Amino acid sequence: MTLRDNKDSMVRRVAVIGAGPSGLSSIKSCLDDGLQPVCFESSDDIGGLWKYKEVSDPNRASIYKSLTINISKEMMCYSDFPIPGDYPNYMHHSRILQYFRLYAEHFKLLQHVHFQISVRSVKQRPDFSRSGQWELVTENREGQEEKHIFDAVIVCSGHYSYPHMPLKDFSGIENFQGKVFHSWDYKGPEELHGKRIVVIGIGNSGGDIAVESSRVAEQVYVSTRRGAWVIRVVSDNGLPVDMKYNTRFVHILFQLLPINILNWIGENKLNAMYDHTMYALKPNHRLFSQIPVINDELPGKILSGGVVVKPNVREFRGSSVVFEDGSVVEEVDVVVFATGYNYDFPFLPPSIMAKSGHRVGLYKHVFPPALEHPTLAVVGFIHALGAIMPQAEMQARWVTRVFAGLKKLPSNQAMLKSIESDTKCMEKSYICSKLVPLQVDFVTYMDDIAGEVGARPSLLWLFFTDYPLFKKVLWGPVSAYQYRISGPGKWSGARHAIFTQFDRMYQPLKTRQVDDEPGSSVAWRVSKWSVTIGLAAYAAYYMQLKPPAALLKLVSTIRPSRI
Amino acid sequence: MTLRDNKDSMVRRVAVIGAGPSGLSSIKSCLDDGLQPVCFESSDDIGGLWKYKEVSDPNRASIYKSLTINISKEMMCYSDFPIPGDYPNYMHHSRILQYFRLYAEHFKLLQHVHFQISVRSVKQRPDFSRSGQWELVTENREGQEEKHIFDAVIVCSGHYSYPHMPLKDFSGIENFQGKVFHSWDYKGPEELHGKRIVVIGIGNSGGDIAVESSRVAEQVYVSTRRGAWVIRVVSDNGLPVDMKYNTRFVHILFQLLPINILNWIGENKLNAMYDHTMYALKPNHRLFSQIPVINDELPGKILSGGVVVKPNVREFRGSSVVFEDGSVVEEVDVVVFATGYNYDFPFLPPSIMAKSGHRVGLYKHVFPPALEHPTLAVVGFIHALGAIMPQAEMQARWVTRVFAGLKKLPSNQAMLKSIESDTKCMEKSYICSKLVPLQVDFVTYMDDIAGEVGARPSLLWLFFTDYPLFKKVLWGPVSAYQYRISGPGKWSGARHAIFTQFDRMYQPLKTRQVDDEPGSSVAWRVSKWSVTIGLAAYAAYYMQLKPPAALLKLVSTIRPSRI
Repeated sequence: MTLRDNKDSMVRRVAVIGAGPSGLSSIKSCLDDGLQPVCFESSDDIGGLWKYKEVSDPNRASIYKSLTINISKEMMCYSDFPIPGDYPNYMHHSRILQYFRLYAEHFKLLQHVHFQISVRSVKQRPDFSRSGQWELVTENREGQEEKHIFDAVIVCSGHYSYPHMPLKDFSGIENFQGKVFHSWDYKGPEELHGKRIVVIGIGNSGGDIAVESSRVAEQVYVSTRRGAWVIRVVSDNGLPVDMKYNTRFVHILFQLLPINILNWIGENKLNAMYDHTMYALKPNHRLFSQIPVINDELPGKILSGGVVVKPNVREFRGSSVVFEDGSVVEEVDVVVFATGYNYDFPFLPPSIMAKSGHRVGLYKHVFPPALEHPTLAVVGFIHALGAIMPQAEMQARWVTRVFAGLKKLPSNQAMLKSIESDTKCMEKSYICSKLVPLQVDFVTYMDDIAGEVGARPSLLWLFFTDYPLFKKVLWGPVSAYQYRISGPGKWSGARHAIFTQFDRMYQPLKTRQVDDEPGSSVAWRVSKWSVTIGLAAYAAYYMQLKPPAALLKLVSTIRPSRI
Repeated sequence: MTLRDNKDSMVRRVAVIGAGPSGLSSIKSCLDDGLQPVCFESSDDIGGLWKYKEVSDPNRASIYKSLTINISKEMMCYSDFPIPGDYPNYMHHSRILQYFRLYAEHFKLLQHVHFQISVRSVKQRPDFSRSGQWELVTENREGQEEKHIFDAVIVCSGHYSYPHMPLKDFSGIENFQGKVFHSWDYKGPEELHGKRIVVIGIGNSGGDIAVESSRVAEQVYVSTRRGAWVIRVVSDNGLPVDMKYNTRFVHILFQLLPINILNWIGENKLNAMYDHTMYALKPNHRLFSQIPVINDELPGKILSGGVVVKPNVREFRGSSVVFEDGSVVEEVDVVVFATGYNYDFPFLPPSIMAKSGHRVGLYKHVFPPALEHPTLAVVGFIHALGAIMPQAEMQARWVTRVFAGLKKLPSNQAMLKSIESDTKCMEKSYICSKLVPLQVDFVTYMDDIAGEVGARPSLLWLFFTDYPLFKKVLWGPVSAYQYRISGPGKWSGARHAIFTQFDRMYQPLKTRQVDDEPGSSVAWRVSKWSVTIGLAAYAAYYMQLKPPAALLKLVSTIRPSRI
């Protein structure tokens, strides 16, 4: 922990808005940097999105009963508080909440949270240019308002609170007799038994709802304008896909190789699992132009006909749905809009949340660039192929260092310039839209913010000072522990956490003793040799010898006849 | 159709016991060979196992509400009646029943079925040695018995009717307070919400029930004595696994290569999907020693902790279950015995169903060997990695030819000898037990019985007379149409059905038009070259050059650190 000793900063009391994953790590980070956090949470519990409720509360994120996270535990956990070894790798929301409780308890965060207090407005004080202070108006359960003065504010209100329901894009829906609701309202398949369902949108929610409801529905159709690349969490050898591929080595490959080659490799790999063309999923965009859908069960449901992939909806006609290819699905009972979320910060002055492209123009997705004092920050408003928790935590560490005066931001002008350039770069790399306003590369972003904090791991330094750790950091998954090896916020347990991350992954699976056959290493050696010899023979044959025509003909028959 | 003109046979009227998949094809085969079938079906509908009932009927097979078959449609269908192109590849039981209705209608089978008539006994008539006739006693819904004389009998009563519930092997279960039932009684997860469940047995039923109930249960444990190899139906490139691998070419490989090599290749392939050791699934037996479990969702459920794999149960202690490794699961609410079925033919004279090993000693799994006249046959009492439908149909075709006197069986002595040798061979190749009394290789068995019928496709003959068809038969899946190309029962649509089998597979998936990028063929050519050059380089490097030690060291670090 760093005690605040910087005289330049006037910040002491910090308002944290929201006690979800971002809010909790922001409270902790305030404490770590000697600030006094006061957290306002509108509901009666911590966890934000991950607190399941039977009925969705308006203007709050909402999840369904069976939701299991699609990021593995070692990749979603906070950097200095590993998830217990016996927790499963992909956790049900109830387990995630348990983990947050452990975290809040361990770092004594709860005493800083005021529950059932909503923030109504956040305004710069009249003397802002001198004090940098903010005036908050809160409202309690009884509707009583209260004013507060804070030296700084961290906004952790999330971005899955305002369902996007594009009814006006669907002509005829006003006369549709069936049930229409947003995925935000979906809790489970109980009321969908025997129904004919059209799910609009094939994001993670759309895919999950389509698969789950198909178990009880008469038929489920999932309509997609763009299509999607779909990946499995059970990756090669059964490893969690993010532990296998979200490595620093892969990240370096992404820096070195042209994106077209990477797209080609990745798409081939996905198509080898299930041909996205055959499964009617293939999108027009390339694999790495958009964060893929994660769904292990969707392909099986498509193959067994429980879920039928359809193009975009053209219009509704009574109880029928007409698709853009002219096909019609009749007697539809339920339409689910899995059409994403709008973001909104209704309590903030619109002036400080100016747009850049589709996104809010925040410096590195955190700081509004035009303030005289950097005393307001947004944490957790980020979207990458990785969990929000470690990213939000990293942002919070940067924010509290800035608040505490331990780190300076560039000039407003420089920040504005950086925002514009980031937006351009993002729009070049990804398909950005109103609903998907921002996407970042997980490791690039983590490294970038860690650089601001001074906690970015140095491969070169590790190579010379701690070679075993170097290897883990290079080849292993980019778990958040890597950002606690050195620098401010260094955690003495980081090295051990990195060395034991695969142990914790294995631990919940060790539930039945299995004989490992003694012959396996021999088999491995045999296989290595036979593969090598086979490859050599194939290469020699292909490169030098003119193959007999008959054999070539036989080989050429294999492909078309087997597919 | 072959009209019966053989004077030797006295068989005209044939009793068919049961109107499930085996019974239906037996009726059809009787008609094809000029016999008069009279089918007795104890329930009020056709379909047997595949007729779903909300409550299981005693002594009848039973399925659960969500059951989807794990054999693809082209591999489960009858040989001369392809499943409609728009039906999904893996069909829900309701679709399978629809298909049976289409089949029964098309071949006018229903008029031969007497519903709600149970067969109570089947006995040789006193003059059997002269007449070969049988006396059947049936019972109708009102309990009225009736006697019938038949020239021959085909038993199609199935083998999933008598749940095996080994309660006596589980000490303490008599004091267990929770619910205990057999998978035969399982209909759906509705009453398992929030429960703690132990499923005993990890066969196809155990796996399905564990996965399905885990969506609503608090926790599901699946206990397995042996472990299992688990395969996915969504195979390479998304093809149905049986269309991809149940080919004649693979079958030939199995004749040519040692089984250890095949096991090694197959196990490596499965472990590349998910390491069976890591997932606590790995059995002691080799892959091809037992028909594997087919379950696409189990690995994901294990990784997300919804299903926990446990060893065999040692005992029950109150509401706790103690496993053989000493671990204890407490507060168990429900125990599901997915422990398979006993077979029984209570209406047959025990003398003619003598055992051979664990199985009934039937000649090629069809004919009792010790009868003076071959006028009784069992159809559909078979177990292979393939659907029962085409196997039962093939058996029925043989049976009716024997009944009609168009085909002779060997001497009783020769049949007995063959049975003993088959049993030995089976026990050598497979793990046979009381509950899994028989297992055969799908293609070997189909070819064998087709040989009896005279309908086995000849590769050599096809090579010279119809090379395009030869290629399809060699490289493509062994769909049942292959056994209608020539010989008795030849069907003029067989060739077309074979050429269009992949079209019918694709058809239900073509639900959204997808742009196939024009560059793909170029990409393919580029990839072929780069792979070839890469392999050549690798081979040359590995075979001839001494690699630099530093690089070798670097390479050697990859493996341990990434797993």
